[in-house]
Amino acid sequence: MRNVITLTTDFGLQDYYVSAMKAVMLGIAPDVRFVDISHEIPSQDIMAGSWVLKNSAMLFPPGTVHLVVVDPGVGTDRNAIALQIDDQYFVGPDNGIFSLLTQDRDFKAVRLSNSKYWRKEHSSTFHGRDIFAPAAAHLSQEGVALEDLGEPLDELVTYRWTVPISDKDGIEGMVIHIDKFGNLITNIAESLIGNVIDQKDVKIYVGNTILDEIESTFGTVTEGEPVAYIGSSGMLEIGINKGNAEEMLGVQKGAQISLILQKESQL
Amino acid sequence: MRNVITLTTDFGLQDYYVSAMKAVMLGIAPDVRFVDISHEIPSQDIMAGSWVLKNSAMLFPPGTVHLVVVDPGVGTDRNAIALQIDDQYFVGPDNGIFSLLTQDRDFKAVRLSNSKYWRKEHSSTFHGRDIFAPAAAHLSQEGVALEDLGEPLDELVTYRWTVPISDKDGIEGMVIHIDKFGNLITNIAESLIGNVIDQKDVKIYVGNTILDEIESTFGTVTEGEPVAYIGSSGMLEIGINKGNAEEMLGVQKGAQISLILQKESQL
Amino acid sequence: MRNVITLTTDFGLQDYYVSAMKAVMLGIAPDVRFVDISHEIPSQDIMAGSWVLKNSAMLFPPGTVHLVVVDPGVGTDRNAIALQIDDQYFVGPDNGIFSLLTQDRDFKAVRLSNSKYWRKEHSSTFHGRDIFAPAAAHLSQEGVALEDLGEPLDELVTYRWTVPISDKDGIEGMVIHIDKFGNLITNIAESLIGNVIDQKDVKIYVGNTILDEIESTFGTVTEGEPVAYIGSSGMLEIGINKGNAEEMLGVQKGAQISLILQKESQL
Repeated sequence: MRNVITLTTDFGLQDYYVSAMKAVMLGIAPDVRFVDISHEIPSQDIMAGSWVLKNSAMLFPPGTVHLVVVDPGVGTDRNAIALQIDDQYFVGPDNGIFSLLTQDRDFKAVRLSNSKYWRKEHSSTFHGRDIFAPAAAHLSQEGVALEDLGEPLDELVTYRWTVPISDKDGIEGMVIHIDKFGNLITNIAESLIGNVIDQKDVKIYVGNTILDEIESTFGTVTEGEPVAYIGSSGMLEIGINKGNAEEMLGVQKGAQISLILQKESQL
Repeated sequence: MRNVITLTTDFGLQDYYVSAMKAVMLGIAPDVRFVDISHEIPSQDIMAGSWVLKNSAMLFPPGTVHLVVVDPGVGTDRNAIALQIDDQYFVGPDNGIFSLLTQDRDFKAVRLSNSKYWRKEHSSTFHGRDIFAPAAAHLSQEGVALEDLGEPLDELVTYRWTVPISDKDGIEGMVIHIDKFGNLITNIAESLIGNVIDQKDVKIYVGNTILDEIESTFGTVTEGEPVAYIGSSGMLEIGINKGNAEEMLGVQKGAQISLILQKESQL
Repeated sequence: MRNVITLTTDFGLQDYYVSAMKAVMLGIAPDVRFVDISHEIPSQDIMAGSWVLKNSAMLFPPGTVHLVVVDPGVGTDRNAIALQIDDQYFVGPDNGIFSLLTQDRDFKAVRLSNSKYWRKEHSSTFHGRDIFAPAAAHLSQEGVALEDLGEPLDELVTYRWTVPISDKDGIEGMVIHIDKFGNLITNIAESLIGNVIDQKDVKIYVGNTILDEIESTFGTVTEGEPVAYIGSSGMLEIGINKGNAEEMLGVQKGAQISLILQKESQL
């Protein structure tokens, strides 16, 4: 049973775009239940959408269909696609938005070439309503297979975060996302840190701030103090206990962050 | 089966207003499924609400009930109403918010005078919770007809967009909505353009910008360039390929937009 | 049947936090229906969350489970709890967020100590996903009782609004919330006003504005004029008919508001 469809878009909720897609899907899949992952992906920010998907899509029950519309190339010749990754299904534009999901997982993909599963009338500016939403709704129904939607596609457009650089002296990474609380989320994974350095003997440089330790959570430091910790996504984050790190440290998305291993002579 | 209720309000989501309405409806219609069309209609902006409804409400499955609360006149003598338009139902204040739906469709309307379908205790400031939501929930149930909610009403308050002016030299219209991406949506319908001018031999004036053509989509021009196209609502829009037209052209809601037919001597 | 779970958080909707919680809950409670009360509680503002809950949670059908995550102390030693209040269930941190619900109602509470009802892997920064959401989902299922989630807890952390001061001359209170429309909501309940003064013979001081009367609704004064009235929450509010009181009166959350009884000699 695939009766859950999630939605991830940069449409916001002040326009009719999201509700038009839901209306179309309800017409095809009357028993569907919608879960809005986010409609506040920054306009046309493919990697921001990919980051949100990476951290929630694979947690959904088997058979969930994820409709993803962050689509700056709508109406051009970018492909419209559907994917199966493990037991989850995805429908959206082939513009790299699925990169963080497919980079370390097997997947099957098709191009949405079978217009039988599109809306009858279709515009060239709103494929969300006219192609992606109907395809997602059909895919959520018993008896519709991924392969029915179109011909197979072997390669997808991929995007990558900048990869952190690491050597025996430490790790250099960057801030890839800043969340609603102002926490700075980096591209430095817990596993990388474990491989390279002892977490205790490290200094962390971010903006004009130097931190001495990776803590288990932000609540372990004094209120208003900055703290480095492994966040719920498994990445190194910098936060402020009961405060906003973006504002208080003056650090932007894209900023450099360095972990420098402390040699014994320096300790 | 009318078990889908949509919600369109200017309540935002930081207060208890939307959830109080949903709580009341769940008490009356336990199996209801909610679809939030928008709670971000600008405060008391009746035409903005009407625009969103026009472009999504009629796409929903037959029997859908649309609860609409943009209600600057709450507590005054404006009527509370319910409507049937084709196979869709609507509940809200009679203040013009249904104008863009009723202007070219037949409808049946009643005044919500039957207090049996109201909440028992009712305030004079929150008819959304106390009158509209219960009425919508009851209307979604088998066995409750529009006529049960109150006495018939023949005329509704109506509002109109300014209508574009057109003659043999061209069309003069205005920007009626700016969407989340900064696209400028005008009151000039595709059908009007087709009647008056050949889309190829036209100049389009908006702010300080002059455009030479109506394209099929924004992706057909260079990134960062302005483009005129017919949007998914069937209206002429001005956008920027991968950019924000509102910001880059410095144009506001209400701005004039002119399509001037080019005479042969001018070509 | 407890198949409705509401969500109240300060997570916003641009991150993966809310959808990760919903994904986890769908895995445990496949038939659940979600109602988002709000994800726009100001970051870590416990009383703002408590205010929204106070005005909507108890309106839901019996057996509704309310998941509440405004949790500045995540990862510290604050308790994770579940409560039953009348026929409603609540899951969240024990940091005072349930204060406005429990202050005048009986309740049963447990500490979420039974890790059988947690997510298998759990982080120290995202108890919403790893402890609260699974507990809420289990509690929504037949056969899981409040007591199964952990050992009983007799006392909760409580917070209170500043209580208004009243004597024979009048009432002094404060603005505790400003809603999306800019209406100023005070801590002065209708019942208190009724006990102390005749509503007609009163002057109301807020910022630099003096009002002469408590009206039944904002529509009773001229457009653009300030008006005092009893709001849908049962508290005294100050609004502007078709305007924004916060902006037009220049009053902030926390501002003082005074009702002064007019002696006959002054009339």
